[in-house]
Amino acid sequence: MSLSIMILNGPNLNLLGTREPDIYGHDTLAAIARDLDTHAASVDVELRHFQANGEGQLIDAIQDAMQWADGVVFNPGGYTHTSVAIRDAVAGSGLPVVEAHLSNVHAREPFRHTSLLSAVCVGVVGGFGRDSYFMALDGLIKHIQSAS
Amino acid sequence: MSLSIMILNGPNLNLLGTREPDIYGHDTLAAIARDLDTHAASVDVELRHFQANGEGQLIDAIQDAMQWADGVVFNPGGYTHTSVAIRDAVAGSGLPVVEAHLSNVHAREPFRHTSLLSAVCVGVVGGFGRDSYFMALDGLIKHIQSAS
Amino acid sequence: MSLSIMILNGPNLNLLGTREPDIYGHDTLAAIARDLDTHAASVDVELRHFQANGEGQLIDAIQDAMQWADGVVFNPGGYTHTSVAIRDAVAGSGLPVVEAHLSNVHAREPFRHTSLLSAVCVGVVGGFGRDSYFMALDGLIKHIQSAS
Amino acid sequence: MSLSIMILNGPNLNLLGTREPDIYGHDTLAAIARDLDTHAASVDVELRHFQANGEGQLIDAIQDAMQWADGVVFNPGGYTHTSVAIRDAVAGSGLPVVEAHLSNVHAREPFRHTSLLSAVCVGVVGGFGRDSYFMALDGLIKHIQSAS
Amino acid sequence: MSLSIMILNGPNLNLLGTREPDIYGHDTLAAIARDLDTHAASVDVELRHFQANGEGQLIDAIQDAMQWADGVVFNPGGYTHTSVAIRDAVAGSGLPVVEAHLSNVHAREPFRHTSLLSAVCVGVVGGFGRDSYFMALDGLIKHIQSAS
Amino acid sequence: MSLSIMILNGPNLNLLGTREPDIYGHDTLAAIARDLDTHAASVDVELRHFQANGEGQLIDAIQDAMQWADGVVFNPGGYTHTSVAIRDAVAGSGLPVVEAHLSNVHAREPFRHTSLLSAVCVGVVGGFGRDSYFMALDGLIKHIQSAS
Amino acid sequence: MSLSIMILNGPNLNLLGTREPDIYGHDTLAAIARDLDTHAASVDVELRHFQANGEGQLIDAIQDAMQWADGVVFNPGGYTHTSVAIRDAVAGSGLPVVEAHLSNVHAREPFRHTSLLSAVCVGVVGGFGRDSYFMALDGLIKHIQSAS
Amino acid sequence: MSLSIMILNGPNLNLLGTREPDIYGHDTLAAIARDLDTHAASVDVELRHFQANGEGQLIDAIQDAMQWADGVVFNPGGYTHTSVAIRDAVAGSGLPVVEAHLSNVHAREPFRHTSLLSAVCVGVVGGFGRDSYFMALDGLIKHIQSAS
Amino acid sequence: MSLSIMILNGPNLNLLGTREPDIYGHDTLAAIARDLDTHAASVDVELRHFQANGEGQLIDAIQDAMQWADGVVFNPGGYTHTSVAIRDAVAGSGLPVVEAHLSNVHAREPFRHTSLLSAVCVGVVGGFGRDSYFMALDGLIKHIQSAS
Amino acid sequence: MSLSIMILNGPNLNLLGTREPDIYGHDTLAAIARDLDTHAASVDVELRHFQANGEGQLIDAIQDAMQWADGVVFNPGGYTHTSVAIRDAVAGSGLPVVEAHLSNVHAREPFRHTSLLSAVCVGVVGGFGRDSYFMALDGLIKHIQSAS
Amino acid sequence: MSLSIMILNGPNLNLLGTREPDIYGHDTLAAIARDLDTHAASVDVELRHFQANGEGQLIDAIQDAMQWADGVVFNPGGYTHTSVAIRDAVAGSGLPVVEAHLSNVHAREPFRHTSLLSAVCVGVVGGFGRDSYFMALDGLIKHIQSAS
Amino acid sequence: MSLSIMILNGPNLNLLGTREPDIYGHDTLAAIARDLDTHAASVDVELRHFQANGEGQLIDAIQDAMQWADGVVFNPGGYTHTSVAIRDAVAGSGLPVVEAHLSNVHAREPFRHTSLLSAVCVGVVGGFGRDSYFMALDGLIKHIQSAS
Repeated sequence: MSLSIMILNGPNLNLLGTREPDIYGHDTLAAIARDLDTHAASVDVELRHFQANGEGQLIDAIQDAMQWADGVVFNPGGYTHTSVAIRDAVAGSGLPVVEAHLSNVHAREPFRHTSLLSAVCVGVVGGFGRDSYFMALDGLIKHIQSAS
Repeated sequence: MSLSIMILNGPNLNLLGTREPDIYGHDTLAAIARDLDTHAASVDVELRHFQANGEGQLIDAIQDAMQWADGVVFNPGGYTHTSVAIRDAVAGSGLPVVEAHLSNVHAREPFRHTSLLSAVCVGVVGGFGRDSYFMALDGLIKHIQSAS
Repeated sequence: MSLSIMILNGPNLNLLGTREPDIYGHDTLAAIARDLDTHAASVDVELRHFQANGEGQLIDAIQDAMQWADGVVFNPGGYTHTSVAIRDAVAGSGLPVVEAHLSNVHAREPFRHTSLLSAVCVGVVGGFGRDSYFMALDGLIKHIQSAS
Repeated sequence: MSLSIMILNGPNLNLLGTREPDIYGHDTLAAIARDLDTHAASVDVELRHFQANGEGQLIDAIQDAMQWADGVVFNPGGYTHTSVAIRDAVAGSGLPVVEAHLSNVHAREPFRHTSLLSAVCVGVVGGFGRDSYFMALDGLIKHIQSAS
Repeated sequence: MSLSIMILNGPNLNLLGTREPDIYGHDTLAAIARDLDTHAASVDVELRHFQANGEGQLIDAIQDAMQWADGVVFNPGGYTHTSVAIRDAVAGSGLPVVEAHLSNVHAREPFRHTSLLSAVCVGVVGGFGRDSYFMALDGLIKHIQSAS
Repeated sequence: MSLSIMILNGPNLNLLGTREPDIYGHDTLAAIARDLDTHAASVDVELRHFQANGEGQLIDAIQDAMQWADGVVFNPGGYTHTSVAIRDAVAGSGLPVVEAHLSNVHAREPFRHTSLLSAVCVGVVGGFGRDSYFMALDGLIKHIQSAS
Repeated sequence: MSLSIMILNGPNLNLLGTREPDIYGHDTLAAIARDLDTHAASVDVELRHFQANGEGQLIDAIQDAMQWADGVVFNPGGYTHTSVAIRDAVAGSGLPVVEAHLSNVHAREPFRHTSLLSAVCVGVVGGFGRDSYFMALDGLIKHIQSAS
Repeated sequence: MSLSIMILNGPNLNLLGTREPDIYGHDTLAAIARDLDTHAASVDVELRHFQANGEGQLIDAIQDAMQWADGVVFNPGGYTHTSVAIRDAVAGSGLPVVEAHLSNVHAREPFRHTSLLSAVCVGVVGGFGRDSYFMALDGLIKHIQSAS
Repeated sequence: MSLSIMILNGPNLNLLGTREPDIYGHDTLAAIARDLDTHAASVDVELRHFQANGEGQLIDAIQDAMQWADGVVFNPGGYTHTSVAIRDAVAGSGLPVVEAHLSNVHAREPFRHTSLLSAVCVGVVGGFGRDSYFMALDGLIKHIQSAS
Repeated sequence: MSLSIMILNGPNLNLLGTREPDIYGHDTLAAIARDLDTHAASVDVELRHFQANGEGQLIDAIQDAMQWADGVVFNPGGYTHTSVAIRDAVAGSGLPVVEAHLSNVHAREPFRHTSLLSAVCVGVVGGFGRDSYFMALDGLIKHIQSAS
Repeated sequence: MSLSIMILNGPNLNLLGTREPDIYGHDTLAAIARDLDTHAASVDVELRHFQANGEGQLIDAIQDAMQWADGVVFNPGGYTHTSVAIRDAVAGSGLPVVEAHLSNVHAREPFRHTSLLSAVCVGVVGGFGRDSYFMALDGLIKHIQSAS
Repeated sequence: MSLSIMILNGPNLNLLGTREPDIYGHDTLAAIARDLDTHAASVDVELRHFQANGEGQLIDAIQDAMQWADGVVFNPGGYTHTSVAIRDAVAGSGLPVVEAHLSNVHAREPFRHTSLLSAVCVGVVGGFGRDSYFMALDGLIKHIQSAS
């Protein structure tokens, strides 16, 4: 089965690899996207990438994915903890969504320990740096395949 | 007196009627807008409709309404519970705003039981599906007329 | 279809129109009831009115309505925020109940922001003064008609 | 020793057996009372039954029981979670009171997990449907006998 | 100036003097009322006494006092901490009300430390046993006289 | 119908009857077990008894009971308030479990007022000393019989 | 019996009568003290007055009163809500202390609704302006006389 | 040293001077910007001004400033209290940011008393109306100069 | 590099595949272990498996792993939310530990939304059923390899 | 207009410049006072300086300032978060007070995030080290001049 | 008087001296035990040592100590904050128990600031590294001697 | 090494031995000081004693100790739970401070369970009556010696 999956990145992730490399690593989001594409192609999966800093733009993207995607790998950044609207978009989309985080949010400030989004996602992967995206993608693909 | 009223819809409401019809009904937002227009015209009220998924766009719309509208019927969706900025826009606009919800938010998750917006609105209508818009519009019109 | 609906008013609403008219308006509960009767009659709905200050009396009334009413418009006053027993009565009655408030409770003291009742009602209308009753009645009638 | 015990039922329990039988069973309160009488008579205990929807009426009943009863089996319904006044009546009565619930309140909404009443009762029985009354009665009788 | 004042007592206070005399003293409510009458007569004040265990009955009494009383001394018992409806009745009555407690509620259970009522009363007196009524009455009389 | 039921006791209950007899009574757990056996035999029920101080041992015991028992009477002691793992064991066992407490936990420290376990049990009995076990056993037997 | 009583005033009460007279009245603390002296003398009670803005000075004063006073009327001002140390001083003094407030603290900011002090006082009087002192003094005298 | 600083304004601040002048003053944002430019020019500082109602647009602006600015004066309006994403943008930018508020947020509603943003700013200035901007700018300039 | 990794499973996971297969799948823990071994062997990693229901036994196992393991994949079951002692064991072991959950704990009861353990783990994977173990193992291996 | 302003410093600020210079800088309070005097003199403002470690002494100082000062720059140190009495002194003084902090309290421990004082001040300045005093003084002077 | 005292150590303390020596020091538990034995022998006290990682094993040990010990020095490790069952064991044992901690738990994570155990202990010693054991032992011996 | 240590006592401790001897023992603070001096002299340590009821005086004392002391044994009494200013003084002093309490604060009221001070102290000793001072002194001496 050939699948189409959106890789969706939220606020500030466009700066990946250019700031605080000791925390987030040296890879840019473009570099990670390229490697994800290669990995996906090897298992006959097509990826489309989107990043935005705005809550509304991310909702637009999720709604757009309803037209073409089989699932979404989503790093919602700071909106993880504050956005009911994005939660509603994910829940309303009917798409399987996997939440991915570069860092381990539980080891950071208390306001990052609660998630409005996780409850409507298939699952959560966090703490593995750029590998979190690959793990989330693999988990999503298996989830879609086992559900079909 | 002829009135101009904005019907403002927040995130994910553009999908109305296309997803989860058992919860939200089969009518699209466009269909509801058409019926609202008909109803409004019968009482000499002109409506303008706007929907956006972004918090900032909704604030822009409220500010724009200050130029031409006599009041707003507003379904803020998920921003109801999280947006101080929209609250400030409503309060600062000086316009009478009626908050409308399709579903009964009190019968859903606990984080939907608190509202940052209600305190600065004229009133609240929720739980009546598409009828909530009609009830809110009628209530707003009466409020404007009794206040003038 | 001819409907029978109870208009149920809770504590202190018998004083309506006689105290604090700047907040609650100059109409007495009797005057509002008369206008509601007229409005209801025009759409072939019969109303019965009941008001009591006691929690138990209101529960008695809801249980009584189970014998004859198709629905209830209920302004529970101060019991909105404190009565599990009335919530149980509403939930157990199997009747569609619409909660109505004269004022916008969200713009008042914090202990008025939580409602034990709303979750078991069809919907909520508040903030429109005496118009709240008319809006709630119309919403209830439409709800009953669409459900039958 | 011959004992006199009040079986006291709070709000909405008069509807037992007529509504939501899948939750509360098919027995009416009258049928349960009759069976409790039979059971009690077999161990030389006389029962008197009282039900009311009003907080004040229940307090009146508890005060009345101080004149003649050796103890009370009390299903306080929704007042379990909200009534300091009933707690004061129970504590002030000096009577041993056993709290009984048809359902398991801990498996329901969070506001049913706290009890203002339990701390001043001898004990609590809940979750066994109509059997809760029989178990509570037996427990109360043993408590009275062991205390005398 | 001749004044008329209601002495209003809430739940369980009818048992005063008959139970737990070490806490509440040996005087019955009737005995206290008699002494209050004597004291009031000496300063040309007429008292009317009312006690009820029901929340609704107390609201009825407060509404009744609006017809004839210049003020109320009110021991709300357990309703102090739970009744929004009585708070609304006191606030809506427009009468000066002094809250009186036999015991020091702050030295008892935590749920007695919050009061829904105090904020709408002229003042509070508590902890002086039967003297609390006399102090509250004197304070109320002075308050009425200085305000007139 | 012949039934097999486990009587499961948690931490510190092995000391019953040897310490603080004024609180917990003079009967040892062995003596109570003997009386429970006699009572059970009279209604054709076989009991097996197990006590452990360790959370894991209690989970082992519940899992073991899945092989042979028709239900469990469980006094979880201090784990009532802290163990998600035991809750999972009870919920996952598929067995009907009745929670029993010697004392009235609601009349003790606040951290004993919340229960992680009750929500997954059939029902709760507490406050009747050693009689709590007999009441819980009778309630469990009736529950099993009515469900079969 | 001749009594000696300390009238103790906490922070900012030295400004009484000079600032915000609409809230606190026009009488200075000295004027109130003079009137309290006259009133006390008429019932054979000697008063000593002390005011300080410092927490430590107030504790010193309470400790000093242990040498000579039969009781204390104490307006602790802002320390009511924050001082464990003053609570310890009052509790440790063994003296009967009556807490008095000019205003009704329950009608002010939420942080004024909790009191660390009240639980160790005989009673509380608040909301009657300068009359609060007279009521508190009378209540204290009666308390001392009835306790002796 | 010549510096470049961004003056960044969040939601609703574009309306400054046109609504509620008694709260926010009569100056428009443009007028304040002009005066800030003059002041900045006198100390050899170049300002760029940006205002947006959207959370994402403000994050875009902060990321843009990383290319050219030495620091930011930021009035985040309602996002102060709700935006983790903006906090991440500020923290990730590595730029010194000073938070400025026209009004004293601590004297307003409780939900304005917590700030998600302040912890990652150099400092905070609030309550001085349009002067807050000038003070914040001066403080930022000194901070940059002392840090270099 | 050849690695040795412990697969550690907490309470109730020994029942996997035998109960509630619609939630947890039909695979037993043994079957999953076998597949994990095969997968690990293909990348030159040796696994050792351990499961226990007891908190202390799990701590013993973690301490034991300090002697031989390069990392741990840990499904702590119900202890995730309650065990400070296991947290201390993980933190003190100095080993990289990845937390894995079969289900999405954020979509379950609120007491499962807080984790005492996650903050001291490398990362978290949850919601992918038996695939969670494979994803966690892969993530751990990459983490160890990139850190060496 | 010639102004007189008090520079008031609370607990531990007398140690400024002698301890933890990396946090608080190397300037002593005396050195800062001297520079503030110079700055003030240039705009025709006379300063008086006062520092104390005691809550009562600071209240005395504020009361004293009512006799001669046009406003106060106040660094309340640790009392910011705990003193209702100082809040009352500031509010009762009728003087414009600006709260100043050397460090950014929002970036420190959670108990420093709440302020009892800010709500009754004109404004707040914090995080700029010794410059906070200069900024606060300038802001206060402008505030006084614009209000006169 | 010759005394017998148990030195009881909870989870992870068996690793003392082998991990994180900068926090916990270089001494192993065995070395500390040896020094404690020497110290105890010099004052005619016999010690027995026990360490376990399991909650149940620690309860077993406390129950065992009831047979032979005059008191217990107990470092409960992570169970300090989570175990009601251990609290019950300590309270039920009737033995004087002194709680000892190597580190200052108040200077660590917030979940370590609450203790379920301390309230039933004689006293607490914490923060002195291995000296905490010696101080706790000396304090316990004095406590036993003064109580006998 | 010869050491100089301050023994600092907070509010109400000057009354030790004269009030509530059953709680605090019969020894006066002077008697304890004498015995502490004797004990200290035997290990070549000189003590200076200071007691005050005022928060500011205690801060003054801590600042004074910076000139001459090697450490402080501090019983902060009621300020333990409320004083951020004393915490700042201890933290800013750079001196090792040991917190000592006569009673076990964890076995008293809930507001005594939180400490603002402990986190900045070396360690805590409490619950051993007058022995707490000796244990704290010994612990402090060892701490100083091991740190030097």
